[in-house]
Amino acid sequence: MQSILIIGGSDAGISAALRAKEVNPQVGVTVIVADQFPNFSICGLPFYLSGEVQDWKTLAHRTADDIEKEGIQLLLEHTATAIDPVKKQVSVINMNGNMKILGYDYLILGTGAVSVEPDIEGLQLPGVFTLRWMDDSFAMNDYITNRNPKSAIIIGAGYIGMEMADALTYRGLKVTVVEYFDSVLTNVDSEFGHLVQAELEKHDVAVNIGIAVEKIEKNDSDLKVIGSKGFSASVDMILVAVGARPETKLAQAAGIGTGMKDAIKVDRRMHTNLPDIYAAGDGVETWHKILQKYTYLPLGSTAHKQGRVAGENVAGGNTEFQGTLGTQAVKIFDLVVARTGLRNQEAIGAGYDPLTVETECWDHKVYYPGAHPMKIRLTGDRRTGQLLGAQIIGHRDSEVSKRIDIFATALFHHMPVDGLYDLDLSYTPPLSSPWDPVQISAQEWLEKHA
Amino acid sequence: MQSILIIGGSDAGISAALRAKEVNPQVGVTVIVADQFPNFSICGLPFYLSGEVQDWKTLAHRTADDIEKEGIQLLLEHTATAIDPVKKQVSVINMNGNMKILGYDYLILGTGAVSVEPDIEGLQLPGVFTLRWMDDSFAMNDYITNRNPKSAIIIGAGYIGMEMADALTYRGLKVTVVEYFDSVLTNVDSEFGHLVQAELEKHDVAVNIGIAVEKIEKNDSDLKVIGSKGFSASVDMILVAVGARPETKLAQAAGIGTGMKDAIKVDRRMHTNLPDIYAAGDGVETWHKILQKYTYLPLGSTAHKQGRVAGENVAGGNTEFQGTLGTQAVKIFDLVVARTGLRNQEAIGAGYDPLTVETECWDHKVYYPGAHPMKIRLTGDRRTGQLLGAQIIGHRDSEVSKRIDIFATALFHHMPVDGLYDLDLSYTPPLSSPWDPVQISAQEWLEKHA
Repeated sequence: MQSILIIGGSDAGISAALRAKEVNPQVGVTVIVADQFPNFSICGLPFYLSGEVQDWKTLAHRTADDIEKEGIQLLLEHTATAIDPVKKQVSVINMNGNMKILGYDYLILGTGAVSVEPDIEGLQLPGVFTLRWMDDSFAMNDYITNRNPKSAIIIGAGYIGMEMADALTYRGLKVTVVEYFDSVLTNVDSEFGHLVQAELEKHDVAVNIGIAVEKIEKNDSDLKVIGSKGFSASVDMILVAVGARPETKLAQAAGIGTGMKDAIKVDRRMHTNLPDIYAAGDGVETWHKILQKYTYLPLGSTAHKQGRVAGENVAGGNTEFQGTLGTQAVKIFDLVVARTGLRNQEAIGAGYDPLTVETECWDHKVYYPGAHPMKIRLTGDRRTGQLLGAQIIGHRDSEVSKRIDIFATALFHHMPVDGLYDLDLSYTPPLSSPWDPVQISAQEWLEKHA
Repeated sequence: MQSILIIGGSDAGISAALRAKEVNPQVGVTVIVADQFPNFSICGLPFYLSGEVQDWKTLAHRTADDIEKEGIQLLLEHTATAIDPVKKQVSVINMNGNMKILGYDYLILGTGAVSVEPDIEGLQLPGVFTLRWMDDSFAMNDYITNRNPKSAIIIGAGYIGMEMADALTYRGLKVTVVEYFDSVLTNVDSEFGHLVQAELEKHDVAVNIGIAVEKIEKNDSDLKVIGSKGFSASVDMILVAVGARPETKLAQAAGIGTGMKDAIKVDRRMHTNLPDIYAAGDGVETWHKILQKYTYLPLGSTAHKQGRVAGENVAGGNTEFQGTLGTQAVKIFDLVVARTGLRNQEAIGAGYDPLTVETECWDHKVYYPGAHPMKIRLTGDRRTGQLLGAQIIGHRDSEVSKRIDIFATALFHHMPVDGLYDLDLSYTPPLSSPWDPVQISAQEWLEKHA
């Protein structure tokens, strides 16, 4: 019996384990999980911290029991300390300091990412948090429950920062966001970033952009944040949410090749440079379908796909990861912001001659109650007319996220912008128009392009 | 200057007119409109009759002024009575009986469809309505306003029947639906029809299936409907909604070829058998992208597309209608039902070896509040693994309609079912799962297929 060892029990690792057993029920699969929480939806942590998710146990995609029922062995609260690729062994240590050596025929690394700790004085002070894993969220939740903070600063206005601004406001805290760049949510265009900022402000979140945080100080019971341009504010707690970086020290020590941001280099089969060692998820470089090259783009949906590919391949299959489009969506208060593919600057960087056109239209026929305006920024290549990417912002009831998926499905097939016209999309007045907003945005792009 | 004459001022006709002027602003475009309501959204009539749309004027996609501003001449309240394809002339008559002859270089027929009048005694009685055009809805609205009916029977449980059951209930009437077939909404599988029936009944609509209506009688102030299996019920008003048929007598009289259900035969450029005469919309046969043959499938979204193709071609362009997938969505109370592509029986008829698998899953991560179950019926070909079609039923907040559009976009590109796995679809816990329901349904299909 072939034995498959997987390091990491989050999305990529568990997805790989399940797929391996599905493809070949005869293989032995063991997953080394650093904490007690295999297969937890870490994307759900903001909703636990907001209080919307009352029982953290419901955050599990599957319970440990569910996973073990598939014949997968879980080694909870064990940390892998070394990989010996020659002997095909992994050393692990448990909470009590007991060490153990595990052999493997195939190894899959799903070690994920860790929160970036920026170069700011005072990060270690009590009341200052990062958020990536279950234990982070327990620590923050305990703090909120026990200390009853009234105010928080969130450093960083990316996805997690934005979701947590919503979440902590929901929980009753007065929230201030501090962002280094000149708009929030910089993975969409600043035109949309400004709309997100307005939504935050509408919900009483204070937003400070263009501020470099320099120092956090303890100040009696308060925490004081000091930044550039004279920024200074005192609050009861702080969340540092400035991004994630691959957790690949273990891999590097074993001689596994890494690339950008130290992410593990893999081929499309999710194979590393070492024999029989695969990797997937937030710790690896990700093939980008439009760029046709590797990038670093850690996303839960991608981790699931890559894990599945790795699991299938180690179990005797032969499949390739088809690539990311960077499709993402986030709900911030009553708005949803979503994107797929390339933005203008990214397209220029990739050698295209892009044109980005913004369209505003109603999400459904305006005569039917509840219509909301939505904005679409469509990016296409002037030379070829090829669709390169799209961004949408709209009300949470406007089917924004699945509209971005229409673009994503079109992008997957390398559609030209004018091909969007030919799509037979559904129409009923309460939900769309005879030409869906997706198609209206294509029309505007073609008019500007003409 | 080339002159383009268009008969019919609804979706196909106006779409053709606008596109012709867009492609070549020099052409003269005249649209003959039988009523005073060019470019009205007849799909919106149920929402006018429900009272949700308070001002019927808002049902206009564009006002007459908007259209005329594009340089399009509207001939309102004129009916075309004859086409002379040799002299290239159309005879029209206005409300006062004045006749006029109009010449053309190119003619586009957008004469649409009319309500089917079934062979039932009593259809002409006051209080018995059909619903297709603005005047139909005014008549019904006046009746409801003036007579204050308390109850209604809807004969026919298709799209319009279902929307009107919702609409009249919303307006305060007690509604009874009578359907000839054994489930409501027969353009989706009966499994979904039964769920729609349950939704109707939950909202106090009485549903009678498998009943052939035989007669309508006037009975003092009531109207009495008598049907098979001893069905009998007395109500204050009746809507007959048993479908539409092409309005093509004018075309036939001019020697324009017609096919199934007397719909006008066109090529993919929307050209008829006669020189310089094109046709589009609910009056024509429609090319089906999966069946790769013509069918009759009158839909507003298709009429817009076909009109656009016809308009482009008569203005000097050269483009083809890419085909329908039969993509449709309808909101019935709190449910949305949508479909695209082929159902099992349709696929068998087209020579496929289909397998249809039903999946139930949550519309988003269940830990986040407001999750609703949705059901997807996915049809694929056993021999090739090709995706053939999908049907979805779910809550109106579950992004059902744009999820069917993901399938529609995949179908447009002839994706295999297992290709759905590779789509990079958006994920955030309030709106989806790492594998979107679209992909979960593909997984279930592949498991059953294995």
